[in-house]
This record gives sequence, C-alpha cells and structure tokens, in this order.
Amino acid sequence: MIREITSATNPFIKHVRALATSKKARQESGAFIVEGWRSIQTLLEHESRQYRLEHLVLAETRATHAPLPEGIDTVSLPDHLFEKLSDVRNAQGILGVVRHLPAPFEIPENGNLLLLDNLRDPGNLGTLIRSAVGAGFSGVLLYGDCVEPFNPKVIRSTMGTFAYCPIHSIGDAELNDLTDRGFALCVTTGLGGTNLYQTAFGKRNILVIGSEAHGASANLMQRATQKITIPLAAECESLNAAIAGSICMFHIQNAYP
Amino acid sequence: MIREITSATNPFIKHVRALATSKKARQESGAFIVEGWRSIQTLLEHESRQYRLEHLVLAETRATHAPLPEGIDTVSLPDHLFEKLSDVRNAQGILGVVRHLPAPFEIPENGNLLLLDNLRDPGNLGTLIRSAVGAGFSGVLLYGDCVEPFNPKVIRSTMGTFAYCPIHSIGDAELNDLTDRGFALCVTTGLGGTNLYQTAFGKRNILVIGSEAHGASANLMQRATQKITIPLAAECESLNAAIAGSICMFHIQNAYP
Repeated sequence: MIREITSATNPFIKHVRALATSKKARQESGAFIVEGWRSIQTLLEHESRQYRLEHLVLAETRATHAPLPEGIDTVSLPDHLFEKLSDVRNAQGILGVVRHLPAPFEIPENGNLLLLDNLRDPGNLGTLIRSAVGAGFSGVLLYGDCVEPFNPKVIRSTMGTFAYCPIHSIGDAELNDLTDRGFALCVTTGLGGTNLYQTAFGKRNILVIGSEAHGASANLMQRATQKITIPLAAECESLNAAIAGSICMFHIQNAYP
Repeated sequence: MIREITSATNPFIKHVRALATSKKARQESGAFIVEGWRSIQTLLEHESRQYRLEHLVLAETRATHAPLPEGIDTVSLPDHLFEKLSDVRNAQGILGVVRHLPAPFEIPENGNLLLLDNLRDPGNLGTLIRSAVGAGFSGVLLYGDCVEPFNPKVIRSTMGTFAYCPIHSIGDAELNDLTDRGFALCVTTGLGGTNLYQTAFGKRNILVIGSEAHGASANLMQRATQKITIPLAAECESLNAAIAGSICMFHIQNAYP
C-alpha cells in the first residue's frame, strides 16, 4: 500500500528534505537519499552489507506507472512537494531513503584499493567510485578530511555504482594493517615519481590520489612503497583528480591482471 | 594606461557580459572570455594562431597588485560590476577578452587526434581538452552537434590549457582527408569492440568518443578502422565520457609512443 502525503510540514517529508540538504542530518540518522530508478534497482538486486533501502518516495503523476518493489515502505507526494526534495530535476520522479549500516572494514585477500587523501570535490569522489567499480578495484578508502560520501552529488556522480563499492574511512592504524599484510602503497604525484607506464606493479596495491589543491599529504609521501607520475606534456600542469585516478586504476588493473 | 569604467550600461561592459552569457554573442563577435591569471599568462606567453588576447578586465580592489602586460587594452571596474561578468567567484579579479582567429585545419604529419562526436557537456569537453594537451595529442576535432568550445564552463574546465590545443569543427569531407592520409579511425564503444589493452595501435590515430547519451554515431561506427572497448566490471554500465577518453588517450600515447 502506498502512503499519500500532501503536507510540506509532514515530519517524514521534513526528514527526507534534511537528508537531501544536511550532512549533519545524514550523520545523525545514518541515512541518505538516492535518486532515480537505476540506483534503486541496484540496491534491490544487489544484497549489500552496507546499505538497506528503507523508503521509496514518488512524485504522484510521474512515477506510478513503473512496477514497484514489494516490502518497501512507499510514499506518494504531489509533484510540487517532490521537487523540493532534490536540487536537480529528477525526471523519473523517484527517490529512495537508504540506511547506511556499520560494516567492519575487511581486508581483501587480493586485489587493489583506491585511497583518497583529503579529496574535497563531491563530483570527483562520485566519479572515482564509478571508475573504481568499473576497473574492478576492491574498495575505496577515505583518508583525512574527505568530502562526505553520502552527499547527494557524490551518490549521483556514481551513476548507480555506489552500492557495489565498499567505502571506508580509515586512519593510520588501518593503513598500517594493510601495509603489514603486503599491500604496496603507490602514491601518485605530479612530479618526481616513476613513470606510470614504466612501473611494475604487484597484485595488491593501494593507489593513493591526493587532494585537488595540495596532492598527497607528506605523511603518505614518506610512507610510499613507490611514487608514480603520469607522464604529462609540459603545457599541462596537472590532470583532474578523477581523471588521474581513473587512468592509474585501469592501467594497474589491466597491465598487471 | 588603464581605462576606468563605472557604469553598468557602458557598451563595453554590456559586450563583455554578453560574451560571458550568450553563445550567439560569442559567435557573432568571434570572441570569448577567459578568467584568471593562468589562462591569461598562457595566452601572453604562447604565440597562438587561433587566439589573440584583446582586452583585460580588472576588479579595481583585487587585481591591481599584479604586474600587468603591456600593449593590451586594460579596463578597471568597481568590484560589484566585475562580479556580474562571471557566474563563478573569480577570486583573482581578472578576466580577458580573447579573439578567435579563423585558422585552417592543418593535418599533422604524425600523432594522434581526439574526435568528439556530438559531445554535449561543457565540463566533459573542457576536461577532455586538458587531458588531450596533457597526453600530447595533436588536436581536438568536433564532429556533429557538440557543445560550443568557447562556453565559459568549457574554457574554465581546460584549466588554462585551451590555448595549446588546436580545436576544429569538422565534417565528413575533412574526415575523409584524414583517413585518406592514413589516420586510423578508432571508435570507442561500450560493447563489442576489442579490449583496449589487447589492441595494437599505429602512429596516427583518430580516437572517437561518442555522445554522453548515445555513444558514437552509426556513421562513425560503420567507418571505424577498429572498434575498441575499455574492459569494465559487470557492475558498471559505462564510464563518464571524459574519463573514458582520457584513459584511451594516455594508453595509446604511452603504450605506442
């Protein structure tokens, strides 16, 4: 049965709007929103230990033709109320409220991890999650003061792939565990590393992408197993962080399968 | 000598604002704007056949401390007028008006070209120009109904590299010239091409990146010398167009130097 809500002051609607706009609200409630059918289908089809779809919210004249999943609390709103829940035009008229479940970080036996070091831009984080899933990386680690991964712009930029990607905030203790277990810390740097295309990689790597403004932090540079540089023509000072990370991930995964 | 303008209705200011906001104004006057010192320095230091810096516009309390180039008409505005010329915060308080000079498309003897087929997003175009310059590609070709390259968001996303990158709109006649001269047409496709990392490339390639929504057009798919696919995990349907293009450009340029 679909619940109908018509008041903008309904507590559930106020809660959803807070999740869409406030990092504090997301952190306090451990929930966030996803927009569009693609992300919702992914959550329904893919058993995830990190995420559980709890509510669906529909714009009444736009989303009702689609077959709705059973067993999920579903709310229908007048279109004008629905539109206030998103900062972009959501043409499909559907969004989901997702609970983020605390899951311990499990170190994969093999494979590669992407570590983002003080990455600040939500579009970059979302795009890097999408590329990490596409390349077949085993997870994304957030180190330092990164953008919050449940920001709607991050989720949107992942294009439905976030549910497939284990994401964990880690500190130096977890990083020590990883390097103790044989993961190589491969830190990208604009200058002075070995050429990416002339570097030999093993089977277990942590690829580090630094912040957009300052690159990798001194701490990680010091601890690097190897420093790697994407060869650039002199006319180009640097690459976008999401581009640089994606180039390295696909190269490492495919040149050293 | 610096001209001072204090009226929002001054014809020059109205012209600059039109260049910032209107594709029609840019096309009719053959000019566009660039923001920030980096792009302006590039234009001053790099002799370009395609671009000529004609005016500098300064926010009076913010930009006057910097050494100004000689021989360029320079205008100073009150900060509140300057701010109306840009849709982003231009912290450096400087922009340039640049003339776009008609330059014939000269086919390079060797090297690789990026062809964008109905690419619509200004951020993707700017990022791809930046990556093409970084990878050492010889130019960018716009085919079909691409986003206008002098859109301020495109120029901004190139991070100062646009002046180094020959950009030309081409049709089938120019494309025939290129393939007649031995350029291989390498069309990226999400499904069914040969694996990028298992493909042999020659010395002269035209890498085709299709539109964000529909991929490469049927015409180019039919004419392809080879179709190439970036290997993707099943969980990821596609990559962002700027990411896909950058992965292919850096791979082709570095694996087949």
